[in-house]
Amino acid sequence: MTGIIGTWEMSAQGVEKGMALLSGGASAGDAVETAIRDVEENPAFSSVGYGGLPAMDGQVYLDAGWMDGNSLRCGAVVSARGILHPVSLARGLCGRETNWMLAGEGAEAEARQRGLAMRDMRTPEAVEKWKETLHRQCAGMGDRVYRGHDTVCVIARDAKGRMVVGTSTSGLFMKQPGRVGDTPVVGSGFYCDASVGAAAATGLGEDIMRGVLSFACVQYMRSGLSPMEACRSVIRTLQETKDRLGEGQGSFSVIAMDAQGCFGAATSETDFPYVIGQNGSIQVCHAAWDRQ
Amino acid sequence: MTGIIGTWEMSAQGVEKGMALLSGGASAGDAVETAIRDVEENPAFSSVGYGGLPAMDGQVYLDAGWMDGNSLRCGAVVSARGILHPVSLARGLCGRETNWMLAGEGAEAEARQRGLAMRDMRTPEAVEKWKETLHRQCAGMGDRVYRGHDTVCVIARDAKGRMVVGTSTSGLFMKQPGRVGDTPVVGSGFYCDASVGAAAATGLGEDIMRGVLSFACVQYMRSGLSPMEACRSVIRTLQETKDRLGEGQGSFSVIAMDAQGCFGAATSETDFPYVIGQNGSIQVCHAAWDRQ
Repeated sequence: MTGIIGTWEMSAQGVEKGMALLSGGASAGDAVETAIRDVEENPAFSSVGYGGLPAMDGQVYLDAGWMDGNSLRCGAVVSARGILHPVSLARGLCGRETNWMLAGEGAEAEARQRGLAMRDMRTPEAVEKWKETLHRQCAGMGDRVYRGHDTVCVIARDAKGRMVVGTSTSGLFMKQPGRVGDTPVVGSGFYCDASVGAAAATGLGEDIMRGVLSFACVQYMRSGLSPMEACRSVIRTLQETKDRLGEGQGSFSVIAMDAQGCFGAATSETDFPYVIGQNGSIQVCHAAWDRQ
Repeated sequence: MTGIIGTWEMSAQGVEKGMALLSGGASAGDAVETAIRDVEENPAFSSVGYGGLPAMDGQVYLDAGWMDGNSLRCGAVVSARGILHPVSLARGLCGRETNWMLAGEGAEAEARQRGLAMRDMRTPEAVEKWKETLHRQCAGMGDRVYRGHDTVCVIARDAKGRMVVGTSTSGLFMKQPGRVGDTPVVGSGFYCDASVGAAAATGLGEDIMRGVLSFACVQYMRSGLSPMEACRSVIRTLQETKDRLGEGQGSFSVIAMDAQGCFGAATSETDFPYVIGQNGSIQVCHAAWDRQ
């Protein structure tokens, strides 16, 4: 059975496109790349690709990840500028034995060499928002700037049982230039083993990496937990760790799919929308923080 | 009981310094930083810090990681140039809630702002070796350039039971500029939970990341395996995966220490030397590939 799942409502249109591809016999890889590109090129989404909100220096730095669950090979783009579709570069790097995780200018040079579309990723609206926030910060007005850390993550399984996960983000608004979150980090932002399942994470990347959430989620599925149980377990474990350390409620969510095409999701937030595409229709579902 | 363990014989002098600190009551953090700085500043070691062999473009790009097993906080430096002690920057970033993983120019700017020592990390010998290899490559002489992927990783436990892990490398010789390996990637290159133990990996980072080796090793210890069993299990599992995929023998090694100060190590290589410091003396031990 084919299936596709994406994080946040912003992925709905992309997930629908991906589902249509899967129904037509396309590969999981094509479905995931198509779904994520849809979000990347939409300037309405301020945390992914074109229109993403800038770092402190006014630049948009992009992260993306890719893992093929059949070959266990990966690709990753770290803190790169001006690449319209970072996910396509991450996918292109997947299959290499070495040099598949590229940062900064190295990633940008690789994208240019491959003839990928390059562009200034800043929309006038994003620049305006950055200027305003900078002004408020300079004026000592304590904005909480670290909101909207919404990564698009998509997992798909095709008719041949192949599984793929992809991720893409412009990262935290007003982040320090060069800051890397979990999105391009295999194990934390994403993991996929087609014989077991896949998982991907969104939220505050710094916390997600401390819990290595995606790999932990796949390991729970490997040990026999359902995708839903696995997602809840990793979220609960990380939040319990934060509680023990006196850190307060976290901001992280995870989606998963197992090798049979069953879905799962969980969150530390009051509401985490995610999108499922299966049997020709998409559905926006909601996970919520639940201490049990 | 205090203890310290480091990868490769190059860490022997640093591990000895770290052990002396621990015996004098110093923190695990000070022991790890001192041990790794000793390797970083020694130009005789061609895969770490000053004297590290360059990337394809002749530049030396540095990666480092740090994790405090009591706070579960991390710091990481990705693909940065000209920082004499990347491990000290990684340690300095540890404790932040956000922006603790910094890549490229962002990491370099942070190092300068902190007043850390900056220098040209290329020794004349390293530049000579790079030129020679470039020449041989241009002449179509098929050098196997991807040797010597030796990361220094050090784990320490102090008298108060605190545990820390640190890592540092200049990465693969002749790597593509911007290439990132496992060294600055939490979960893959290093992981530390003082209530359980710590692990760190060295070898071909691209393979280590596919297996998320360090986190997997700590999870095995959490489930009750000894550090030695945990190390053997992760190495065996990753090699079995590579066998199944028809990829041939891998190049990866892991060290570990549990919360009681017991050590472990395993490798897919024919010989992997590591250094243990305990009870006032250091010992160079050897792990070897063992299919069972």
